[in-house]
Amino acid sequence: MAIIVSGLRAHSRLLGELLASRLNLRFAVVEGKRFPDGEVYVRVTPSVREEDVIVVQSMEPPQNDALVELMLIVDALVEAGASSITLFTPYLPYSRQDRVFLAGEPVSVRAVLRALHSLGVGRLVVVEAHSERALSHFPGRVVNVNPLPYMAKLAGLGGDALIVSPDMGGVSRARSVAEALGARSCYIAKVRDRVTGSISMDVGSLDPRGLDVVIVDDIMSTGGTLAEASRILLERGARSVQVLVVHNLNLPGALEKVTGAGVSRIITSNTLPQPRLDVVSVIDITPVVAGEIARWLS
Amino acid sequence: MAIIVSGLRAHSRLLGELLASRLNLRFAVVEGKRFPDGEVYVRVTPSVREEDVIVVQSMEPPQNDALVELMLIVDALVEAGASSITLFTPYLPYSRQDRVFLAGEPVSVRAVLRALHSLGVGRLVVVEAHSERALSHFPGRVVNVNPLPYMAKLAGLGGDALIVSPDMGGVSRARSVAEALGARSCYIAKVRDRVTGSISMDVGSLDPRGLDVVIVDDIMSTGGTLAEASRILLERGARSVQVLVVHNLNLPGALEKVTGAGVSRIITSNTLPQPRLDVVSVIDITPVVAGEIARWLS
Repeated sequence: MAIIVSGLRAHSRLLGELLASRLNLRFAVVEGKRFPDGEVYVRVTPSVREEDVIVVQSMEPPQNDALVELMLIVDALVEAGASSITLFTPYLPYSRQDRVFLAGEPVSVRAVLRALHSLGVGRLVVVEAHSERALSHFPGRVVNVNPLPYMAKLAGLGGDALIVSPDMGGVSRARSVAEALGARSCYIAKVRDRVTGSISMDVGSLDPRGLDVVIVDDIMSTGGTLAEASRILLERGARSVQVLVVHNLNLPGALEKVTGAGVSRIITSNTLPQPRLDVVSVIDITPVVAGEIARWLS
Repeated sequence: MAIIVSGLRAHSRLLGELLASRLNLRFAVVEGKRFPDGEVYVRVTPSVREEDVIVVQSMEPPQNDALVELMLIVDALVEAGASSITLFTPYLPYSRQDRVFLAGEPVSVRAVLRALHSLGVGRLVVVEAHSERALSHFPGRVVNVNPLPYMAKLAGLGGDALIVSPDMGGVSRARSVAEALGARSCYIAKVRDRVTGSISMDVGSLDPRGLDVVIVDDIMSTGGTLAEASRILLERGARSVQVLVVHNLNLPGALEKVTGAGVSRIITSNTLPQPRLDVVSVIDITPVVAGEIARWLS
């Protein structure tokens, strides 16, 4: 029998509870605190000896604190004799630095994944990682759950929508949504200056006139990319623009930037903690994740 | 030829510069920033291909940010073809959780050290780690520099002082100071309740009447231990109490607590950033560290 153990963060607990109840598994929350000097203390109180443990850790900012806490939890589980450790971290931080763009850079996500693997994480479950390349740096087994078709259907999107990826890297993501809905998909060629961070966009022959557009992306960070894409699509005659994004980091000002650019609704998931606002539709993706994990466990 | 590369923090740069100038080695500072979402970005701009690199990272709070930044730097150095990576982290965080005190706990310092080793750190130089046990968890080569005799002499302490360790674990530390000064040493039996954190002290047959006492410790965190020891020693008739501590975390209120308990001077080092205050004497320990590293390099 497997046991689900969640980290200290409120959202880790929430996701752990949802998963445990769907999978009908035992569930425990790590105990812990911060020492006065800022170091993290954790303790896994239930017995995990010879158990298959699924650790649930939410990685919203501050990501570094979440990561170090997770490293300590994994060490504690190994120490306590767990027979295997599967990590479910719905949002994988540092996944956008999945290669060396400029000489002298790290592959940050590789550092994160190697460290976790070296400590004892054998399997990794993530939701819509930024790229397959990011996940290729994990030496163990990986499941990358794509919840977008599920999210698109639950959000009531239809086959008449035009599904747009705001960059070439997201084409297969947009296509997975379009196929599920029986809709068309296309992309905007986004060019990001790695040094200044500025973005320029080339919509090419894309014609959104009179269409209800859904921009599909993996991560909403500052909202800059999505706002720019929305503005261009509306300028070119789109009737409406919605955003379907898996991970909303919920950074200050991001929602305002995106809605200010004409986006009428943001459909996102609970891979990260979300605000309760009319303009944001939050879809619980634990049913999809539970399905993947159940397949392993059976 | 080796090259010294320091992390982004001001104190990492300061220590890197001091070491590089003493060792007459090339010196470079990592470039970097924080992304809007809080992720760290680093870039090592000088060529380190086939170089022996000494990374200097100061680990003052917030320690988790320092640790993750360090992990990324190490990944970047490996990616850039460094032939070896030696880490100089004068203060090693998480070193007090060097064993399992209660079932279910991690050995936190092991998680930190294993992760760094797995990413490519082959050698580790630290200053007065909390325990040899803490360092035993690093799979590579370790040098644990004891700067206390050097610090005691530079601070002008004499053979007439009574050197006191505030707990049994620090006896050899106090003894190293006493031997260097030709002074006597002894210890207070400190009992810390792992759950509540409360401390009780048993001075036994120790008689500090009329003596100038120097309490020697590795880490000053909240100052609770040092304040309590000072109070007991003054109550028992000590003429004066000074503190000689390698790592002062400089937490809010700690200095006030210690001076409020009658400590007349805190002698500490620059393993961590220090305040400029009359009551704090800061001793640069990079000469001692440079001596150890020079022995390796020769």
